[in-house]
Amino acid sequence: MPTFTPDYLRQVGRDLFHACGASAEEAALVADDLVEASLMGLESHGVTRYIWYAQEVLAGHIRPGGTFRIVKETPTTAVADCGLNFGLVSARRVVDLAEQKARASGVACVLTQNCHHVGRLGTHPQRLAERGLVSLAFANSVKSGHFVVPFGGREGRLAPNPLAFGAPAPGNPIVLDMSTSMIAEGKIRVLMHAGQPLPAGAIIDAEGQASTDPHGFYGPPRGYILPFGSPDLGYKGTGLAIMVEILAGILSGATSISDLPHINGFCLIAIDPDAFCGRERFAALIQELSDYITGTPPVPGHPGVVMPGGLDFARRAQRLQSGIPLSDQTWRLIGEVAGKVGLSLAN
Amino acid sequence: MPTFTPDYLRQVGRDLFHACGASAEEAALVADDLVEASLMGLESHGVTRYIWYAQEVLAGHIRPGGTFRIVKETPTTAVADCGLNFGLVSARRVVDLAEQKARASGVACVLTQNCHHVGRLGTHPQRLAERGLVSLAFANSVKSGHFVVPFGGREGRLAPNPLAFGAPAPGNPIVLDMSTSMIAEGKIRVLMHAGQPLPAGAIIDAEGQASTDPHGFYGPPRGYILPFGSPDLGYKGTGLAIMVEILAGILSGATSISDLPHINGFCLIAIDPDAFCGRERFAALIQELSDYITGTPPVPGHPGVVMPGGLDFARRAQRLQSGIPLSDQTWRLIGEVAGKVGLSLAN
Repeated sequence: MPTFTPDYLRQVGRDLFHACGASAEEAALVADDLVEASLMGLESHGVTRYIWYAQEVLAGHIRPGGTFRIVKETPTTAVADCGLNFGLVSARRVVDLAEQKARASGVACVLTQNCHHVGRLGTHPQRLAERGLVSLAFANSVKSGHFVVPFGGREGRLAPNPLAFGAPAPGNPIVLDMSTSMIAEGKIRVLMHAGQPLPAGAIIDAEGQASTDPHGFYGPPRGYILPFGSPDLGYKGTGLAIMVEILAGILSGATSISDLPHINGFCLIAIDPDAFCGRERFAALIQELSDYITGTPPVPGHPGVVMPGGLDFARRAQRLQSGIPLSDQTWRLIGEVAGKVGLSLAN
Repeated sequence: MPTFTPDYLRQVGRDLFHACGASAEEAALVADDLVEASLMGLESHGVTRYIWYAQEVLAGHIRPGGTFRIVKETPTTAVADCGLNFGLVSARRVVDLAEQKARASGVACVLTQNCHHVGRLGTHPQRLAERGLVSLAFANSVKSGHFVVPFGGREGRLAPNPLAFGAPAPGNPIVLDMSTSMIAEGKIRVLMHAGQPLPAGAIIDAEGQASTDPHGFYGPPRGYILPFGSPDLGYKGTGLAIMVEILAGILSGATSISDLPHINGFCLIAIDPDAFCGRERFAALIQELSDYITGTPPVPGHPGVVMPGGLDFARRAQRLQSGIPLSDQTWRLIGEVAGKVGLSLAN
């Protein structure tokens, strides 16, 4: 697979989103966060998204330069209408706002309306962690993303509704970023193309029967993804997904059964350690916890215990050297959509 | 199994904890919450705990009447030293404090130090939900409770570190309460006594080998519990457990490797819907979500989809009629420990 330097891909993305109508500053916010996800090996939320984001601009679902407007606010809370700008631009404004409020008050909670895809959810707690804050993030989706059945059900009623957590640490920040479903749709697609079966217990087909066949999901008719913890503990995954739905969606006033195009409800809770044990004590205790956890003897055959996000940061360090691999098809599709917005990419 | 009325068990608990040195008011707080857990069928955190709590008083680990003292505070945050009072008394003070602060500021975060066992974690978000607030709760434990291996490890480094969530709803509140491990220790004990195997993937033995034998956990030598999501997705469970460890423990300034007797670090984040979409809109959207989720057609053989906490509330309604079953042994042990604090129970 051809590889690209992050600098080059960043420039391509900046040019692409600028050609889509974003300001140079906002185009850079979007491109840089997507390149970061690719560096971490999280390609489903990486440079591959150049294609879809540009298509969403062409479809009128993303409105570059859309105004970020606070519709309700207290010193510790806010609801922001994101004006359907790129979600990564909106999320950056939410991060900045939550940071200001948490520094001033110890804790803050900021929600969105009309927010497009916020990318890799962990991006945002990671950024706050790099600025010294602890945070929780939640994201839901509109009805067209309801691929996940609630526990015991046989029709989708929830999206993979991810949650993320970040905490500052002396080395890399601690970043948890997880869906509340058994598998991501993107991974089903990868296994289908590779002709491989799915892990047991990840999906049901359109008849409600357990299946390990990727075509059981894609159909037609379309199947569904099971909640995290299935088959026995899937009630926990559904509980987490409903928690995310309420925090990221309902609390902002959004219906859970919206027929609108792709929108992420996004909830960010930021906490300043200085309002609690203080940043120095916090850092020392995080180091102690990290040493304790990563010092666990591994089970036979396991490479060793890491802190949340540890593998992603390791891959990032490696790809800063080796470059970011992109399939020929992805690169071709990026070139195609670039052409549609009047940008010609070198081959 | 003999059954008891909730009123009778409440009175026994009130008398017992009063005889332990609690004021009548605080004894009632503890007894009433434990009876509620038994009514919901969550007996591991129910009346059975009368025994252990009284033993902990006798051991000097619980100090009835211990002072609840705020050691750090802002309008939206607090760290409270709970003085090793009964954890359910301390948690009630934390709930009241978080409620006041969230009503005044929209969001609040309260942490504890020197807090004994806070009981069924869902108790506290449920109470806030009954008062109209959304909340998240997290609890960790001291080192002696580290039965759970981090993903890929073969020695315990984390407790089952539960998290809970509550939201007000037009009917019963929505209450999620889940450990971040594959199984609770109490359930392993039940299966051992019944001579039944454990579910696959729940524990490893002292050698780090997968086992379905309850004796593989109890040994000696002692085995360990696997993180929620094992075998493939256990990194998510470990990530959640580390999140809980940081929020409930480290943020309050507590080391993760404390050799102290049983202490729960407890973190409660409360959110007032009136600072966001408003309570009326919130209630309407929760009703819509609940109808949508519980209206999911079930998979063949499944009794139907419920909202988080739904089965617990159904069992509560049933036990209000039928009474609370307690084993002869539990009742005998309650009588024994009551005798030790100078209380004689009718048989």
